[in-house]
Amino acid sequence: MSVSGDTHMERLRLDAPADALTRLFFIFGSPIAHVRAPVVWSTLMKRYSANALMLPADVDAERFDTALAGVKGMANVDGVIFTMPHKFAAMKHADVLSARARRIGSINLLRRRAGGSWEGDNVDGAGFVVGVRADGIRLQGAHVYLHGCGGVGRSIGWSLAMEDIARLTLFDLDATRAHALAEAIRQDSKVRIEVATKAGGPDMRETDLAINASPLGLNAGDALPFSVDRLPPHAVVADVIMDPRTTALLHAASAHGLKVHHGRNMMNHAMPVAASFFGLDDAFDWNGASVQG
Amino acid sequence: MSVSGDTHMERLRLDAPADALTRLFFIFGSPIAHVRAPVVWSTLMKRYSANALMLPADVDAERFDTALAGVKGMANVDGVIFTMPHKFAAMKHADVLSARARRIGSINLLRRRAGGSWEGDNVDGAGFVVGVRADGIRLQGAHVYLHGCGGVGRSIGWSLAMEDIARLTLFDLDATRAHALAEAIRQDSKVRIEVATKAGGPDMRETDLAINASPLGLNAGDALPFSVDRLPPHAVVADVIMDPRTTALLHAASAHGLKVHHGRNMMNHAMPVAASFFGLDDAFDWNGASVQG
Repeated sequence: MSVSGDTHMERLRLDAPADALTRLFFIFGSPIAHVRAPVVWSTLMKRYSANALMLPADVDAERFDTALAGVKGMANVDGVIFTMPHKFAAMKHADVLSARARRIGSINLLRRRAGGSWEGDNVDGAGFVVGVRADGIRLQGAHVYLHGCGGVGRSIGWSLAMEDIARLTLFDLDATRAHALAEAIRQDSKVRIEVATKAGGPDMRETDLAINASPLGLNAGDALPFSVDRLPPHAVVADVIMDPRTTALLHAASAHGLKVHHGRNMMNHAMPVAASFFGLDDAFDWNGASVQG
Repeated sequence: MSVSGDTHMERLRLDAPADALTRLFFIFGSPIAHVRAPVVWSTLMKRYSANALMLPADVDAERFDTALAGVKGMANVDGVIFTMPHKFAAMKHADVLSARARRIGSINLLRRRAGGSWEGDNVDGAGFVVGVRADGIRLQGAHVYLHGCGGVGRSIGWSLAMEDIARLTLFDLDATRAHALAEAIRQDSKVRIEVATKAGGPDMRETDLAINASPLGLNAGDALPFSVDRLPPHAVVADVIMDPRTTALLHAASAHGLKVHHGRNMMNHAMPVAASFFGLDDAFDWNGASVQG
């Protein structure tokens, strides 16, 4: 009797980051090369032995609906993150929306619920606010300038307007977008909401916190979104751009003697919120862990 | 001047199996839990430092077209493997087919071509034949009994019929499926093709190689696909089922004193063919590597 099995020369020890039971998460974006979520989330999943991966989905706007419908059709996909340019287009794929996602008008998170339906949330702004507070920046009574009212800007604007700041000045190259956001926020917030007609607004001298939420700074050679020259010495300049870590705007602010707040704080502090949304908070030990790199 | 960055307590060393540049491959199947491709392929990708992952896609027949269209919409997806029950349904998603895939009528591989179109191939049968030869089993002049003419069975039948075997006896519970395959193969092969009207066929005493290509044996308690009692002492019994590694059929054959050929051989020997199809053969060093586990 001969029992012959496999005939290869050497046995391969199976030691893979994926197996048949791996739960999948995706981040949809275009371009995708600079996106940090796959490496950061997958590091944490590995560190805390969650059999799960955060995968890049390099999907342009034209293929977005098809690709997302496909991902939702995989029973082992538990959640999706959206970055540029998909946060608005993603919203219609949610069967249920959080109150803040409805207000903001876009989602950056989508999760599969127990019954098989999909729930959307937007935690960009929440992460930004938590990050700002963790960085010791005082929001109470602050005058805030927010440059850019697109996906991230809307989320940050709404979150700040739910805090006890004194004034929020909005600017967008598309003035109608800034006015629309201002009008919407005014319905729900006691904060004084203004719209600036030019970048930097009329009164940078009274600004305590100036935030770039536009894509300017993502590419080398981009113009500064606004000038930091007239900000008061105690002002903080924040950027939402994560790569480069220190944008030209933050370099200029530092050179001007101002405290800067890096874009990575937003993702870092939004991650625990997002992990909880995705049901991963039991796996991740946030005490002592960070997501820098 | 204060330059404050991230505020977490500890820096996390990024050490993840996925990043923004990871190339993605999927295996579509249902059920998916027993499928070995993700762990085996991903082990090799990691071992040979290919920034790529083979991921499970738990997709049922109803969601198949949607899910596959979605995966094809991700620019960082390079290829897809199909297992039960998708090999037939996958074929219409290929823009171009290999000659053998056209003959077999189903595909188990799909790759993105340079121009963005998708090419299908079917290497199950090719892998089976290479594995049988590597296991020292003589095909020349052999009488072969093939039990099951579904996706894998068709592929194996076609591949064997292109070899120098003497006779191929086909059986399927659905007799029309066996007859259709026999008729198609007869157009292109010099091998004597017969159709058995009952499991085991009329002449197991003259069979040199008996192959189970049906799903029987996948689940505990399945009936044996055919009896091994009348096979001659030199006969070999092969199974295509990979998990359990040794099926009830192979146990019975061993107990009867017959040489057995495990299902894992087919995948192991199809892998180099598939890796070449996917353009991964430069990354993988097949000399000395195996895919057991």
